[in-house]
Amino acid sequence: MRSDIRFGILGTGGIATKMSEALPLVEGATMYAVASRSQQQADAFAVRHGFEKAYGSYEALINDPHVDVVYIATPHNLHFSNTMMCIDAGKHVLCEKPFAVNAREVHQMIDRARDKGVFLMEAMWSRFLPHIIHAHEIVQSGQLGDIRLLVADFCIHRPMTNPKDRKFNPELIGGALMDIGIYPMFLAEFMLGSPLDQVAMAGLGVTGVDMNCSAVFQYPGQAQAVLYSSFLAESGTRAAIYGEKGTLLFDDFWFMPGNLRFVDAQGKETSIPFEKIGNGYQYEAAEVVRCIRTGLQQSEFMSWADSIRLIERLDAIRHQCGIVFPGHD
Amino acid sequence: MRSDIRFGILGTGGIATKMSEALPLVEGATMYAVASRSQQQADAFAVRHGFEKAYGSYEALINDPHVDVVYIATPHNLHFSNTMMCIDAGKHVLCEKPFAVNAREVHQMIDRARDKGVFLMEAMWSRFLPHIIHAHEIVQSGQLGDIRLLVADFCIHRPMTNPKDRKFNPELIGGALMDIGIYPMFLAEFMLGSPLDQVAMAGLGVTGVDMNCSAVFQYPGQAQAVLYSSFLAESGTRAAIYGEKGTLLFDDFWFMPGNLRFVDAQGKETSIPFEKIGNGYQYEAAEVVRCIRTGLQQSEFMSWADSIRLIERLDAIRHQCGIVFPGHD
Repeated sequence: MRSDIRFGILGTGGIATKMSEALPLVEGATMYAVASRSQQQADAFAVRHGFEKAYGSYEALINDPHVDVVYIATPHNLHFSNTMMCIDAGKHVLCEKPFAVNAREVHQMIDRARDKGVFLMEAMWSRFLPHIIHAHEIVQSGQLGDIRLLVADFCIHRPMTNPKDRKFNPELIGGALMDIGIYPMFLAEFMLGSPLDQVAMAGLGVTGVDMNCSAVFQYPGQAQAVLYSSFLAESGTRAAIYGEKGTLLFDDFWFMPGNLRFVDAQGKETSIPFEKIGNGYQYEAAEVVRCIRTGLQQSEFMSWADSIRLIERLDAIRHQCGIVFPGHD
Repeated sequence: MRSDIRFGILGTGGIATKMSEALPLVEGATMYAVASRSQQQADAFAVRHGFEKAYGSYEALINDPHVDVVYIATPHNLHFSNTMMCIDAGKHVLCEKPFAVNAREVHQMIDRARDKGVFLMEAMWSRFLPHIIHAHEIVQSGQLGDIRLLVADFCIHRPMTNPKDRKFNPELIGGALMDIGIYPMFLAEFMLGSPLDQVAMAGLGVTGVDMNCSAVFQYPGQAQAVLYSSFLAESGTRAAIYGEKGTLLFDDFWFMPGNLRFVDAQGKETSIPFEKIGNGYQYEAAEVVRCIRTGLQQSEFMSWADSIRLIERLDAIRHQCGIVFPGHD
């Protein structure tokens, strides 16, 4: 009998909660430990979600020999150092997006994981949602013909009530691009591959981070992707892929579990529904279990090369927008 | 009793047809003359639409002393020379968009009109549609609060069956930007004013013109406009203006007569319907009649400054995209 993969989570924020709600749906995964910088917070979180262990420091969790894989759900600025610490302790790692602040850091993380023989994956959870996988299959199948245009956004109004909040704090690698703009950028990279070139523009807020960030990607054969993100506006957060032979439309909040609609060249619309199970984070966790059990160091679905491609794109966009993170860049 | 303003139309293409269908709705306007390079085509068009005169050359129409105002509905490459010829003949001019190929040409047209004391206006017909005017009033009124994001597109699939077609022919100033991309660019300029800066990207097709062209405009206070156009994809051709206190949504094909929807911060949607009369071209024609009767040389609603602002924006976008029109630029 195979033993379960024991998950440890660093952090007790919103994303840690999402994963904790999803893990019970994952066969072969055990909610083992959670760590916070505050023992009290770790204890409360462990009780609420049913973890066996609660640690008052990240180091304590990482040094627990029973932890198989660490899910890094800490603020963006800690992804790199936490990942490195876990790898050095011989732990497998699932690290929240953005994987790190820039390509240099991502390369270091990957090199270290390769050397240490551990599994490492960026927690780009949308990549593993059934409707996103199906959309990718449709694009690959040629059903849409040549792809001409991809439009995706992630705009959600986040009033800056607290400038120290991680979303607005440059020291915590805040800003729209790294927090939410990464999703549309990922979708374009995933569906259409790397563009020939891109232009991007951002509006920097009072704290120095980007309050909005938009980009246009240009592909061979003239296809374009139009991608935008904002903390200032509440838009539909939609995605659409326009091809020669039809259009694929995603439900609102396209990056979350949802449905697809296919509109053919004559305008006839067909719904492609998907059963909605849990919050959707279980799919990436299941992939972690599968990879670790198979002895893989990377997933072929969100590979190291995929993460390098994505962070290099973000680096280029940030450079064009003048978004700099001191101490990293 | 005031006599009617007698319209002469240069060209017998699609846009000349639209104007000919609209003119009967305009009080004080007479469909007087039409000119084509072919007498036969001019005759057929005049009979079909009820013009008094049909000329087999543009010069003949321009030299008819009974023509008060010339509507220039010729291909883009002729807008400048036709306008100059009309002004020199002492005619008032309504010239299709793009007003000319670049700001240099637009400045020359305006200088000449000023010197000759004639009326001159760019035929940006959407500017005069009731729902667009109302949207502008809503934006100005502060009902939306600070504007954070404007998204507008114009994407219509135009297969390149004939590369010599004006839409694809660089000599005829083809390309998505000058033909359809100008509409979203105009909307942003009209609603939000000139941006601080913009980035743009285009995919150039086999004939050298842009098959798609997208831009991001950045405004003070971090607002952005995301604007895209394409001959390759059939998108919704939608527009939306997102503000601090609500969103203004335009019906599909936002640049044509249509309705508005207002969505407040709580998500409550209110429809703002508009009576649909004719094809909508009558509104700009009525403005021409009003201005000429009032003795104005320019409309305050689509002023010379407005046209200069727009063409300067298009120049900047073309420069960023590498779109060049030899013989003009």
